[in-house]
Amino acid sequence: MSSRFIAVDTYDIRFPTSRELDGSDAMNPDPDYSAAYLVLRTDSPDGQEGHGFAFTIGRGNEVQSAAIDALRPYLLGRLVKDVLDDLGGMWRELVHDSQLRWLGPEKGVMHMAISAVVNALWDLKAKRAGLPLWQLLASMPPEDLVALVDFRYLTDALTPDEALAILRSRAEGREERVARLLAEGYPGYTTSPGWLGYDDDKLRRLCREAVADGFRQIKLKVGGNLDDDIRRLRIARETCGPDIRIAVDANQRWDVDPAVEWITALAPFDPWWVEEPTSPDDVLGHAAIARRIAPVRVATGEHVQNRVVFKQLLQLDAVSFVQIDAARVAGVNENIAIMLLAAKFGVPVCPHAGGVGLCELVQHLAMFDYVAVSGSIEDRVIEYVDHLHEHFTDPVRIRDGNYLAPTAPGFSSTMRRASLVNYSFPDGPVWRDATP
Amino acid sequence: MSSRFIAVDTYDIRFPTSRELDGSDAMNPDPDYSAAYLVLRTDSPDGQEGHGFAFTIGRGNEVQSAAIDALRPYLLGRLVKDVLDDLGGMWRELVHDSQLRWLGPEKGVMHMAISAVVNALWDLKAKRAGLPLWQLLASMPPEDLVALVDFRYLTDALTPDEALAILRSRAEGREERVARLLAEGYPGYTTSPGWLGYDDDKLRRLCREAVADGFRQIKLKVGGNLDDDIRRLRIARETCGPDIRIAVDANQRWDVDPAVEWITALAPFDPWWVEEPTSPDDVLGHAAIARRIAPVRVATGEHVQNRVVFKQLLQLDAVSFVQIDAARVAGVNENIAIMLLAAKFGVPVCPHAGGVGLCELVQHLAMFDYVAVSGSIEDRVIEYVDHLHEHFTDPVRIRDGNYLAPTAPGFSSTMRRASLVNYSFPDGPVWRDATP
Repeated sequence: MSSRFIAVDTYDIRFPTSRELDGSDAMNPDPDYSAAYLVLRTDSPDGQEGHGFAFTIGRGNEVQSAAIDALRPYLLGRLVKDVLDDLGGMWRELVHDSQLRWLGPEKGVMHMAISAVVNALWDLKAKRAGLPLWQLLASMPPEDLVALVDFRYLTDALTPDEALAILRSRAEGREERVARLLAEGYPGYTTSPGWLGYDDDKLRRLCREAVADGFRQIKLKVGGNLDDDIRRLRIARETCGPDIRIAVDANQRWDVDPAVEWITALAPFDPWWVEEPTSPDDVLGHAAIARRIAPVRVATGEHVQNRVVFKQLLQLDAVSFVQIDAARVAGVNENIAIMLLAAKFGVPVCPHAGGVGLCELVQHLAMFDYVAVSGSIEDRVIEYVDHLHEHFTDPVRIRDGNYLAPTAPGFSSTMRRASLVNYSFPDGPVWRDATP
Repeated sequence: MSSRFIAVDTYDIRFPTSRELDGSDAMNPDPDYSAAYLVLRTDSPDGQEGHGFAFTIGRGNEVQSAAIDALRPYLLGRLVKDVLDDLGGMWRELVHDSQLRWLGPEKGVMHMAISAVVNALWDLKAKRAGLPLWQLLASMPPEDLVALVDFRYLTDALTPDEALAILRSRAEGREERVARLLAEGYPGYTTSPGWLGYDDDKLRRLCREAVADGFRQIKLKVGGNLDDDIRRLRIARETCGPDIRIAVDANQRWDVDPAVEWITALAPFDPWWVEEPTSPDDVLGHAAIARRIAPVRVATGEHVQNRVVFKQLLQLDAVSFVQIDAARVAGVNENIAIMLLAAKFGVPVCPHAGGVGLCELVQHLAMFDYVAVSGSIEDRVIEYVDHLHEHFTDPVRIRDGNYLAPTAPGFSSTMRRASLVNYSFPDGPVWRDATP
């Protein structure tokens, strides 16, 4: 009962993914998937640790780690029970630190650092409860969930009372939804076929494999060259047939007019959604594009900095799919706020994943959303990319295109010790031995 | 001609301003004004250095410094002339680094780091030209100024051709405007009387002094307690009389409805503007507040992360004053984009300043705006706070409430060597010797 936090260990972990052109898109030609990783340790005899991370794509991961280090004083010496019993209060302390707030506010490196810490705390809380995070969250009473959310800047769109009403309305059918998740899992879609760096043969082969593996949705990166995009989308549509959903993803490549022109040219191939057509900061731009490309729909979110921007995208009908990211906004608590906003506006949440460890994290959020917030699985899918899962102790499991519900206690965020050693930058063996 | 960059030295500089409650407001009760400071050194025999910094308010300044360090590879070894001759190209390289971009994109710690580097490059360029920055910029042909701006995500509001037309239209009267600046300076307003931490007697005394010093506008912090705000605003209005403009500043304290209620209660005291009524990310919130509190006007900008958000505030008529900050968006280049947007929409630019060194920087931007972008000084003022100027080699000079035009070559960003030593955190004498 009286155990305390005794260490916040940080690790700069980088995977040399750019060597293979995995993950290449119109804005990110050569990512090295990386994690500014942290391990929270306590003096409890149970030996449980909380693991979390911010995902980056290489350079600057050391800045992200420094930002996590800056949060260390918030935990060291604190009673574990006090912190874990009031993660809403802890979130507010971290986000509203009057000096650190200047570095955002609530955006960028500092906010992602808070994400890593908050998620590590939830990992620890779930491990201590002996539950996977999605089940821990789904078992919490509506009042306790609402207490996790900071409604500052949200009340013109969603009040605490409205949030409570949404959560209470989902009591019915809850056990059936849990049972369904445990039996069938949650639908996934795969981005693996569609990276810009792949040639047409590889695209065709990967499309075939995706369908054979049971996926009902795939995603292609677009925005480099229009002729190439038309050719690649035609190949994908021909290979997959008319019944497979094909989303396209521009990774913020366009201004408003070029977005409309480009998407119009791709529309004959029936794209399921167009993702990140422009700057994640441009809510008016997204709204203008959505209006002009209808019935093609817009999705965004992986780079949306916080709940305030999601709120506006929803207020403007600018997005038809809300793509939460587990580690960009300030962790579980802020994602609950965003899921509640999406439920209020009736927009499905389809999490962004991939990178390293993001699939492991978001599956918990999507499953919690299904059980307790939206109550629906219709038009909802979790992104899946078949990268780097082997580095985690509780990796995602995909069957017939579905994410199987995780059952191990925690947030599935624990990286294997050997990976923390081998991929440590710049001194781990993978980097130390690389030809410069 | 063949000199190269040989060092990017960074310094974590902090001033213990929280000990005096200077700078206290509703969201920032105890700032320690700080600078993540950098010095660019070259091997040129002229010995000129470029100085720049990101402003923070204490904790996390080491994270900000680490972010500047991450940009070092962009300069070391590069030819100085190549870089300085194409600062538009350099800006794009820094902002669009495909891996570092993930840490924003274009916001927060990483964007402020780019600001520091870009501003240091401009400081060096102006020193080498033997001109104060405002005059260097004002002497550049419109085509060259447009080439400094990245129009990505802006073209639905402002195209390069429109920007060129705006700049060309200001050729007329240009010499008169330069002469006026050199003779009279540029109007300032003072925030010194209005910090929340000051008692009523100090407020009254500082109001009297501000008017006696020639200021025609002051600013009061609000948003802590409504009764206090009404009392303080009454004191200020009674002390200053009806002809002095009194702006109020809520520092992001409110949601939409509370903002409207609070401002309505303050309206009888004729506030000139209401600054930062809500989250800087909430363009729709600002627009709703602006519509509902008219004719009281809204100002914002010191925490607006980049040109994309300024664009939207202007598209929505959400702000009547654009408060650029010299070191939050990515430096001079991005501020030129924002000034051009403001000119397009006919909204005055009234820079945010204070902190440490911000007055020194923004005076150059406002004066350039007057000479070459807006062509007008009407309803335009630069914030002035009488703090920490003594640490700079070319401090601002105020006469009769006006900023006198700087005449020394550079961006007025050079801090005295002794200050870099004494206020270095945590090992400089000021911090080392502080009672813990």
